Amino acid sequence: MNLPAGYRYAATYAGIRKDARDDLGLIVSDVPAAAVAVFTRNRVQAAPLRVARAHLEKSRGVVRAVLVNAGNANCATRTGVIVAEVCCDAAAAQLDVPADQVFPSSTGVIGVELDASLITDKVPGLVGALSADRFEDVARAILTTDTRMKTANATVEIGGKVVSIAGMTKGSGMIHPNMATTLGFIVTDAEATRADLQAMLNEAVSRSYNRISVDGDTSTNDTLLLMANGASGVQLDGDSRACFQQALNSVAGSLAEQIVRDGEGARKLIRIEIAGAADEESAVRIARSIANSLLFKTAIAGSDPNWGRILSAAGNSGVEFDPSRVTIWLQDTAVCRDGLAADFSEEELKCKLDEPECTVRFVIDGPGRGDARFLTCDLTEKYIEINASYRT
Amino acid sequence: MNLPAGYRYAATYAGIRKDARDDLGLIVSDVPAAAVAVFTRNRVQAAPLRVARAHLEKSRGVVRAVLVNAGNANCATRTGVIVAEVCCDAAAAQLDVPADQVFPSSTGVIGVELDASLITDKVPGLVGALSADRFEDVARAILTTDTRMKTANATVEIGGKVVSIAGMTKGSGMIHPNMATTLGFIVTDAEATRADLQAMLNEAVSRSYNRISVDGDTSTNDTLLLMANGASGVQLDGDSRACFQQALNSVAGSLAEQIVRDGEGARKLIRIEIAGAADEESAVRIARSIANSLLFKTAIAGSDPNWGRILSAAGNSGVEFDPSRVTIWLQDTAVCRDGLAADFSEEELKCKLDEPECTVRFVIDGPGRGDARFLTCDLTEKYIEINASYRT
Repeated sequence: MNLPAGYRYAATYAGIRKDARDDLGLIVSDVPAAAVAVFTRNRVQAAPLRVARAHLEKSRGVVRAVLVNAGNANCATRTGVIVAEVCCDAAAAQLDVPADQVFPSSTGVIGVELDASLITDKVPGLVGALSADRFEDVARAILTTDTRMKTANATVEIGGKVVSIAGMTKGSGMIHPNMATTLGFIVTDAEATRADLQAMLNEAVSRSYNRISVDGDTSTNDTLLLMANGASGVQLDGDSRACFQQALNSVAGSLAEQIVRDGEGARKLIRIEIAGAADEESAVRIARSIANSLLFKTAIAGSDPNWGRILSAAGNSGVEFDPSRVTIWLQDTAVCRDGLAADFSEEELKCKLDEPECTVRFVIDGPGRGDARFLTCDLTEKYIEINASYRT
Repeated sequence: MNLPAGYRYAATYAGIRKDARDDLGLIVSDVPAAAVAVFTRNRVQAAPLRVARAHLEKSRGVVRAVLVNAGNANCATRTGVIVAEVCCDAAAAQLDVPADQVFPSSTGVIGVELDASLITDKVPGLVGALSADRFEDVARAILTTDTRMKTANATVEIGGKVVSIAGMTKGSGMIHPNMATTLGFIVTDAEATRADLQAMLNEAVSRSYNRISVDGDTSTNDTLLLMANGASGVQLDGDSRACFQQALNSVAGSLAEQIVRDGEGARKLIRIEIAGAADEESAVRIARSIANSLLFKTAIAGSDPNWGRILSAAGNSGVEFDPSRVTIWLQDTAVCRDGLAADFSEEELKCKLDEPECTVRFVIDGPGRGDARFLTCDLTEKYIEINASYRT
């Protein structure tokens, strides 16, 4: 993996989660990095998000370190803000940087007090262990019900120099669009203004993290952070921005897709493609309504080409369209033409639906040019099993 | 069961569904009845709904008969409207009433052509079998994945005379508020204007069928019909309307609750009560967001008092509220006070959550007077099992 210059990483087990695998991670930029973030739109926001926002504001968007834990969301807790501050203070002291340049982040159970000393006790060891090649250790430490580590990277050549982007993310349930679903940390050695970084992050998120859904739920802790420390010596300008944006999109897109692939209990990745809607916004609404239909998701789990559920879910999106102009493809087989059953072999299609990836194409015939791509996964008994017993 | 005067019923097996149980029902009023209906708000509307609307308009709201089948939704079919018309014509001819006074209704799979002759062949036999005491036969014939017949009735004494209301309904999946979820037929021997009937039906639905959710999906065929034939000799006026409304509310409320109790795979009925929201509309939005959270529904399936998921789901409703003023009760145990974990015995509460009914009370402390009640059910592996194999 081609990692950006000027970052070091460390992870350890701090005893926050029950099973003894790393649950605390630290990402440090050797020099002050420009940073931007997107946060959950949930009305209930965890303490670390509130502290992270305040820190970004006080430091004017300068971040030197990310301190992240799994196993406890530090949300709806009496001591939440103080715990987040104390932990940042400990990291700041050890790293000799201002406390408001430390970005706190947490994921895990809600409503259980987080013991700050579990984290502060480990900070000296973490700082001592920092290393440029321990990126994946942090990527593993932030996982909760995830079954796989999720990382992505890309490089761009700009003016003969190489700029790198590397990202890590976690999340496999409580995944819903319209926010920085789950935790994600993307680091780059490019240099850019905060305004440019925010615009680029927003664009990347709009087509990746905001176009996936596992269960329609949205966490109180969702955060996606982008740090740019300039260590490559490349300052992004008008021309190079487009190249960088493309690379950033591919990193964010890959991370988001990995989340859906690892959706709780998911056996199949479902790609939903909408075309011919009045505009992109309408296309996304139709896609989301299909992606969140339990009836559709369970039909795919059962390899059942039940296209009536797709048409019905689209009809529930609130978007106006003429059902008699709709054609639906499942795995490149037309199952519905002009809103009516197409002629296809159900047995053959059932076999094709047993594959690990399923593509639904929903096309409205007409003048509309609105299209959208969206990712979701099937809904299986395993999802229920995981979530009926997550906490206990 | 106290059935309203002047109605007769019949049901038979017409071969529409695979298993040999009744799938065709007929409800006839001896005299023209005033009728009003609410229909699905899905953009995709099945043929029988389109025909039913047209008939209600042409007949100026007079209905003599309801012809209803299960096993095929007659939706997204090439011949849909013609099939519905032909079936109505057959019933009308046999009953010697205008065709536009026959109200068609269908439920079942989408996108499969419905063979009209299956129904028209059975119409003479159905008409011959009409009987005042076969109400429950029709109530059973309209069931699909339901495990139980769903009926309710009520009587009101008005001016020394008895007015009866009787209702039947079906539905156990694809249940979502904001419409006449599923099929429902309510008959009464009161006499009332169509305007009054529509107002009363709307009020009854707003607190019953529009306050339940099983899986957030909404069918293309949902219909709720209210017929009033005046056979009791009681004409509703200003004073008696309130009594009748109360009785109608109780019938609709009971039918809606039975749907949730029979939710696909459901083991538990969940009552959600919201208080202290800014207004009723906000309270309903919070309740609906909790009711539709898969994480919440699976937690209840697992008897897990995971109140963080309730707070988080409320936070996703789009309603503004201060999380630090929220108190949450589960089975009368306070689990969250002022947005923080309350002191309770998790073991004791887990036992209480094993009961077949679960009550969630979500109270926002403040000046708001908006409250709402909402019903849903837990989400179990059984839901997946049922819906991964419904069609095949």
